[in-house]
Amino acid sequence: MPLFEGVPERLLLLAAEAVRPQQYAAGQVILQQGAPGEALLLMGLGAVRVSRVDAAGRERVMNDAYAPAVLGETALLTGGERSASVTALGEVGAWLLYRDDFVRLSNLAPRLLWNLARLLAERVTAQSDELIAVGVSTELNMVQVFLGLYRQRQVAGEAHPERLPLGRSDLTLRLSSSRETVVRLLRRLEQARLISVRSGEVTLCDPVGLEALLYDIAAEEH
Amino acid sequence: MPLFEGVPERLLLLAAEAVRPQQYAAGQVILQQGAPGEALLLMGLGAVRVSRVDAAGRERVMNDAYAPAVLGETALLTGGERSASVTALGEVGAWLLYRDDFVRLSNLAPRLLWNLARLLAERVTAQSDELIAVGVSTELNMVQVFLGLYRQRQVAGEAHPERLPLGRSDLTLRLSSSRETVVRLLRRLEQARLISVRSGEVTLCDPVGLEALLYDIAAEEH
Repeated sequence: MPLFEGVPERLLLLAAEAVRPQQYAAGQVILQQGAPGEALLLMGLGAVRVSRVDAAGRERVMNDAYAPAVLGETALLTGGERSASVTALGEVGAWLLYRDDFVRLSNLAPRLLWNLARLLAERVTAQSDELIAVGVSTELNMVQVFLGLYRQRQVAGEAHPERLPLGRSDLTLRLSSSRETVVRLLRRLEQARLISVRSGEVTLCDPVGLEALLYDIAAEEH
Repeated sequence: MPLFEGVPERLLLLAAEAVRPQQYAAGQVILQQGAPGEALLLMGLGAVRVSRVDAAGRERVMNDAYAPAVLGETALLTGGERSASVTALGEVGAWLLYRDDFVRLSNLAPRLLWNLARLLAERVTAQSDELIAVGVSTELNMVQVFLGLYRQRQVAGEAHPERLPLGRSDLTLRLSSSRETVVRLLRRLEQARLISVRSGEVTLCDPVGLEALLYDIAAEEH
């Protein structure tokens, strides 16, 4: 669990006493945007999808997260509402760590807060790269999303990291794009034998070719 | 300075002893992406522009920051290179807080790390909304950038918050868009009397009308 990296063992024991184990089934909404956020979610098993609706009611899937991961930190830190919804992609095992306990533990081991800030800083950098890609083209954004998810699934030790759990509707929400655009771009990548598309799944046939495409698109556009 | 909110006074005195004051002139590169990052930059006066180049060499201006603000936290937290470049938009007064001092102070007052994590969580949320906007259209992104910058300048107490320091080239970098698209969108907003464009400056004539447009664009697209 990256949140606990470098944290003294004595403190890990206190944390283990403070958390409450939870199980969630596939499709279950674990955190609901707009609800009060009183606990961190430490995911030990499984994967989730994070989505956000903006003030004008537009929804986007922001990213998927694979265990081990920490979620729900924004509401905890700001004292406000959940900034996004989190839905289980399959069976999820997690622990809830409530604000009072988190504050108490982080006063004993500030390293916890350092780790949390580091994870957030890494997310800012990843989102910056996604903003660059989206600004260039939906195709670039799509390829970058595929490769990012592939790497996440590799790190998480998934048996088939190349089989991405993304249907056409998932992709329209992930890329804030129209179904027509998504279908057209998927067809183009499929014809180039870089991916194959089945119901609810995109399989990367040639991750190296997709990686090369990232640079080709950049050259095209500039 | 939001970084020091709720931090005991005794600690503020230690911080004041640890920091080193710096002055930067307009146009000066304060932090350079890729350079080793050994200090936080606490900006007390002025404004800066933050930009990032991705692995394929595409540049985007990520945002502007107005004093009081903290910058340079990503490299400090990750122990890696600067994740973005920071350039002075005018005269900038700042303090450098080196990693060792920051670690020492944050062990005495974990609240410092809490505040830093909170600022990063807020940035993730703002970037999420920008990703939603960019996915919908460059026009929506442009309007959202204008209104966001206007609010930042209001909070910073700028004499003319409606006069945004954005030329056409700045906007192509801010929106990862082509010059043609930027010129076309500016003309459209100007014809609707929502903005007026001069060399190096966009003036918001009707912020309320721009706000309404955010919702109109959403309705159009869906």
